[in-house]
Amino acid sequence: MRIAIDLLGGDNAPAVTLAALEELVKLHPEWEYLAVGREEELARLPKAPQIEPVLCGSMMAMDEDVRNLIRKKDSSIWVATELVKQGRADAIISAGSTGAQMTAATLLLGRVKGVQRPAIGTVLPTLQGGRLMLDVGANPDCTPELLLQFAQMGATYVHCVLGIENPRVGLLANGTEDHKGSELTKATFALLKESGLNFLGNREGRDLLSGDYDVMVCDGMCGNIALKSMEGAIGALMQMLKTQFSANLRRKLGAALVMSGMREVKHSMDYQEYGGAPLLGVNGVSIICHGSSKERALVRACEVAVQCLESRFVEKLGQAVK
Amino acid sequence: MRIAIDLLGGDNAPAVTLAALEELVKLHPEWEYLAVGREEELARLPKAPQIEPVLCGSMMAMDEDVRNLIRKKDSSIWVATELVKQGRADAIISAGSTGAQMTAATLLLGRVKGVQRPAIGTVLPTLQGGRLMLDVGANPDCTPELLLQFAQMGATYVHCVLGIENPRVGLLANGTEDHKGSELTKATFALLKESGLNFLGNREGRDLLSGDYDVMVCDGMCGNIALKSMEGAIGALMQMLKTQFSANLRRKLGAALVMSGMREVKHSMDYQEYGGAPLLGVNGVSIICHGSSKERALVRACEVAVQCLESRFVEKLGQAVK
Repeated sequence: MRIAIDLLGGDNAPAVTLAALEELVKLHPEWEYLAVGREEELARLPKAPQIEPVLCGSMMAMDEDVRNLIRKKDSSIWVATELVKQGRADAIISAGSTGAQMTAATLLLGRVKGVQRPAIGTVLPTLQGGRLMLDVGANPDCTPELLLQFAQMGATYVHCVLGIENPRVGLLANGTEDHKGSELTKATFALLKESGLNFLGNREGRDLLSGDYDVMVCDGMCGNIALKSMEGAIGALMQMLKTQFSANLRRKLGAALVMSGMREVKHSMDYQEYGGAPLLGVNGVSIICHGSSKERALVRACEVAVQCLESRFVEKLGQAVK
Repeated sequence: MRIAIDLLGGDNAPAVTLAALEELVKLHPEWEYLAVGREEELARLPKAPQIEPVLCGSMMAMDEDVRNLIRKKDSSIWVATELVKQGRADAIISAGSTGAQMTAATLLLGRVKGVQRPAIGTVLPTLQGGRLMLDVGANPDCTPELLLQFAQMGATYVHCVLGIENPRVGLLANGTEDHKGSELTKATFALLKESGLNFLGNREGRDLLSGDYDVMVCDGMCGNIALKSMEGAIGALMQMLKTQFSANLRRKLGAALVMSGMREVKHSMDYQEYGGAPLLGVNGVSIICHGSSKERALVRACEVAVQCLESRFVEKLGQAVK
């Protein structure tokens, strides 16, 4: 397996990407790593026969307008994705601009035959383990047919990567009753019911972290808002707890005693364990990592990429959307 | 002030509504309360000259199809709303079915002149205090013109009830950049920019609990999903903490020491303090309480109702949407 790694992507790049490479060579010495960076990053690469430096000339900033990409064909994400197109790499991972990664993959690798539009999935850390939600931002405007494809692509992904047979598919709506929803979700409901998928019906925001589903389907607007609302709520709550737990000596002592428990909760809610979000529907394996990814998340992303390759995920996705 | 109270609405009715009445008579003996219930609930009313019993024959269940309302004109929510229509009450509060309350208000009280569709707001417990988000479920499908009206109605509400001058209005989207969003939010962005409102631009899910805004505007689908996603995330996190904090003796001891801090956090994130969500755009004051409201929330809802009346909220809303 040969994995292209964007050294420049992410809030903590290149320190974190370089550290991840070092870790990867130890954990998975059987894989090859094509490390894409400028001269200054390549000079800092760990020395290992598994690591091949690939020079790029620029980078796409996290908040840069995606339309710039077409004029930045020397950017790390474009160069890394081209490696897959040329057959020099089997997969790519990046913690850089999600929009740029998705655009590069769509333009260079193309879509799987039959796929209308690629989607971005994310694995949510639920009370019952990882569950897939898609789309979380690639497609703010959707049709029922598009959402049906997301369901098919998502079900294929959790089958291939999470090993789930006959995945349960929920439709994110404003209530669990069958008649609830927007015009979009009502029409999607009808399609999903006839789809042959294991369709659970409508589910709502508060079901997202319960984990009583395997794939949650929604348009990119609702998915993005749900995801960030949960991130924000958890962040706000943690901040409030921190303030309260240091309010007096008694609580400070108590906080010291429960600290390991808080860490475990933080750990189990940590997306890092799930190694990034797959880009579904492009003709190749491109794993999107959170901008704030640490080594662990990047390592996991490579493992997820290899699972995609070994389970022939892209091929199976093509069969699912037929 | 005469407030109609739906004794039958809510998960904890009538015990909680009866207890709230007792509290209200103590706290606000200057107001009158029209308590709407069946004979069995009216028999349990606290004895007080401020409380007037009003008989109804049935109720709308929490999960009952709203379309049933039209055939249940003896239901508590219909009878209570009629009291406002007849001028016997100035406002109504209920913790029953949101859909039924909204439908009763729309059919009986009608919309404020100029209002296309009423919206449901909710006051979010942010790190900086209460902030209004709307719509949270009444309108799953919206137009840009509708969202503009929500902004105008929301700004009027926070001005009248929360006392905020020149409220800052955010538009909920899938990113903070101006070019982000769906077709709907992009068109709304343009309208809000020209509206004369204090428009902040796009905001995302993780901004909802930060509180760097006064009014957050969105369609009912996104608002509902955001709200319930946050509720679900906080619930899941609290559950995980509880499990971890009782995992061993050391943590149990620590948990006992920080318990008061956890309670304060729970309290500050509690919607009960904000007393329910206003129904905006109907020609009268109708305050929607959370189904799981306790006494405190119902008391606050009555106080909010009176603030609406004293600030002439409905009249000002009509001027704002002109």
